[in-house]
Amino acid sequence: MQLELNSELSNEWIQKSKSAKAELEGRNGAGKEFLGWLDLPEKESTRVQDYLHIAARLQQLDAVVMVGIGGSYLGFKCLYEAIHSPFKNSTGPQILFAGHSLDGQYHKDLLDYLADRDFGVVVISKSGTTTEPAIAFRLLWSLLQNKHGGKEAAQRVCAITDGNRGTLRQSADSLGFASAVIPDDVGGRFSVLSPVGLIPAAIAGLDVYSLLQGALEMSDLLKRPGDDNPAVLYSAYRSGLYASGKKIEIMVYYQAAFQYLAEWWKQLFGESEGKNGKGIFPASAGFTTDLHSLGQWIQESERTIFQTILDVEQSESPVIEQQENDGDGLNYLAGRSMHDVNRVALQATQKAHNAGGVPSLRIVIPEVDEFNVGRLFYFFEYACGISAYCLGVNPFDQPGVEAYKNTMFQMLGKPGHS
Amino acid sequence: MQLELNSELSNEWIQKSKSAKAELEGRNGAGKEFLGWLDLPEKESTRVQDYLHIAARLQQLDAVVMVGIGGSYLGFKCLYEAIHSPFKNSTGPQILFAGHSLDGQYHKDLLDYLADRDFGVVVISKSGTTTEPAIAFRLLWSLLQNKHGGKEAAQRVCAITDGNRGTLRQSADSLGFASAVIPDDVGGRFSVLSPVGLIPAAIAGLDVYSLLQGALEMSDLLKRPGDDNPAVLYSAYRSGLYASGKKIEIMVYYQAAFQYLAEWWKQLFGESEGKNGKGIFPASAGFTTDLHSLGQWIQESERTIFQTILDVEQSESPVIEQQENDGDGLNYLAGRSMHDVNRVALQATQKAHNAGGVPSLRIVIPEVDEFNVGRLFYFFEYACGISAYCLGVNPFDQPGVEAYKNTMFQMLGKPGHS
Repeated sequence: MQLELNSELSNEWIQKSKSAKAELEGRNGAGKEFLGWLDLPEKESTRVQDYLHIAARLQQLDAVVMVGIGGSYLGFKCLYEAIHSPFKNSTGPQILFAGHSLDGQYHKDLLDYLADRDFGVVVISKSGTTTEPAIAFRLLWSLLQNKHGGKEAAQRVCAITDGNRGTLRQSADSLGFASAVIPDDVGGRFSVLSPVGLIPAAIAGLDVYSLLQGALEMSDLLKRPGDDNPAVLYSAYRSGLYASGKKIEIMVYYQAAFQYLAEWWKQLFGESEGKNGKGIFPASAGFTTDLHSLGQWIQESERTIFQTILDVEQSESPVIEQQENDGDGLNYLAGRSMHDVNRVALQATQKAHNAGGVPSLRIVIPEVDEFNVGRLFYFFEYACGISAYCLGVNPFDQPGVEAYKNTMFQMLGKPGHS
Repeated sequence: MQLELNSELSNEWIQKSKSAKAELEGRNGAGKEFLGWLDLPEKESTRVQDYLHIAARLQQLDAVVMVGIGGSYLGFKCLYEAIHSPFKNSTGPQILFAGHSLDGQYHKDLLDYLADRDFGVVVISKSGTTTEPAIAFRLLWSLLQNKHGGKEAAQRVCAITDGNRGTLRQSADSLGFASAVIPDDVGGRFSVLSPVGLIPAAIAGLDVYSLLQGALEMSDLLKRPGDDNPAVLYSAYRSGLYASGKKIEIMVYYQAAFQYLAEWWKQLFGESEGKNGKGIFPASAGFTTDLHSLGQWIQESERTIFQTILDVEQSESPVIEQQENDGDGLNYLAGRSMHDVNRVALQATQKAHNAGGVPSLRIVIPEVDEFNVGRLFYFFEYACGISAYCLGVNPFDQPGVEAYKNTMFQMLGKPGHS
């Protein structure tokens, strides 16, 4: 993984980012009780056998529904969409999602679809009481029990939850669900390299060892001192731009596989930094698709944006062939792969946008696989910690999400919320 | 359809929006040569029989690939995602997309997938030379010819393109593709109610008449004068907020079905308004999913945002049942539908965000069907025209998208671009 910057970094923000890195490594900063994610690549490697064991039973089914929201949804969703092809039949169960919204139509259609399929459920919730996954799990668990009876139904459920407390832990232990533990010192948006992401990945047949190996390699790299540490560079880059009035960061990807990497990244940075009246607005765009929608805005509208671009070196691709009739005028591209043209589009667009006043940073990845997604996960988490410390906020809390929940519980008449 | 505002509108912006509406209706403003979309609901109604006739042949196939990008992609994609359930088998062909990016892996997997399926292609491009769809069509056409020979292959293609000019029109006429005409006075992002959206919709088995009927009803409604014209209100609302420093508009939806309505809306407004250093940045969020990612930012970060919320009154939905064991604590919701809880979440969130300094407008839609999506298409197009006139820009050009294209053609060595 390489970072290519198109502009000079200020020494001021490099030094601030290095101090923030020291704060993170020293484990003395704000939110220091939630730094367990720093050690996940190493610690979780020893638990993979257990996860594969849990996964093996669920892999026999027609479909497995992953139930979770926020950090209990986006990490695996991102990984799955990055690796899985919508056009290839995989050998394992169909992977589905529920409890990531309160969409009635979606959940009704899903339940109808599952009625005559042998399905299992992975329910992911620290407390077990988060409204969306709790409702979805109640519906799915009821369907499973009606189909199989309680004992057989329980064989089809895995709960990923707190080790000791909470209603989901109680249910898991009393009903005999397979289960795994979300560590106390790992917040939702930093949890993808815990069982929250790893068990769903194992069920989907993804290479969990490579994923952790990539994260571990990145963890070793980022620990190093020096001004060329990529997390320090990324933090300095975006912090400096924000201080100079660039208020929106657009995560740009050129592969559909990365659509949900951008969504995961939005949660990571948005929830970590967006507080106390501060924070870069995290947006995303999939090019070249969105060059034909947001491209005009980016080129010529308010100069308050910058771009972080994911550039993939190697990819399978069709090759454009010479045609006798060159009516479409594409023979000048004959012999080149579509992927090659995609990368030229990337470079040309970066150049044109830079010329239009949009700074950018390019993150170059050798290819899209578990190893490299593991690197990206750890890289962005680490850079997020540094960047939020530069901004002067606690990266590991999310006080603002209580406001709508309290209002909602009052309106729904939840006991204890009058 | 109703608009619910949570804040007072300034009379200044209502008057400006009314003037802009008069400019649009008078067809004398900037870009007046591209106002054909105003009349599409009426004009296209007379052509639906032709489109159904073209569709009938392609509906016999296993799969149909829609090839297009920007306005030749997002309109139908939005409509399809709104109506089609990912969990219901439809009777017609599988609907696929290509040429909306240069993603090599995606297109390779798609071509492999199609190799042993009887598929057809709808290629949508005014000129026929837009790089992405041109490359995808060359690849798909080559595969079709190899499978069936030229004559049989041509029976599986429909070209939606210029009536007289361009390479795709030439190919269609010389090779005998079915074809339809994109009107000269309709730009890409305003083209969904032309054959660009209608023929794919007919192939997918959607109710094209209802779609146009909804648009026609909205067209009649919006023509009326008065301060309560919803397009005037929406324009006044967002124009006033932008003038007061609110720089980002988030289109919020609570149904997965509307994910691509937000994408279509982003192109419509971003490309129409984002020029001359001006324009609201169009973003989107799917709640409650993204309350668990962007919710923190929205509640407590920079106060530069406002929200436009799509609220659906009626939806199919599972109902939450009473359980003997209330371990998950959800019995207080027993008897309520998930959709009902979703709408309470909407109201609570709107209230909490308003209290946190985020103004919002709610667009209430009776249900998600072709008729109501038709209304929304016309509503947003019309409001976009007004709003861009208020901003003082030409809503119907997109000069900024040439910059990256010229750079790209130079780098790719396209003849005539040295």
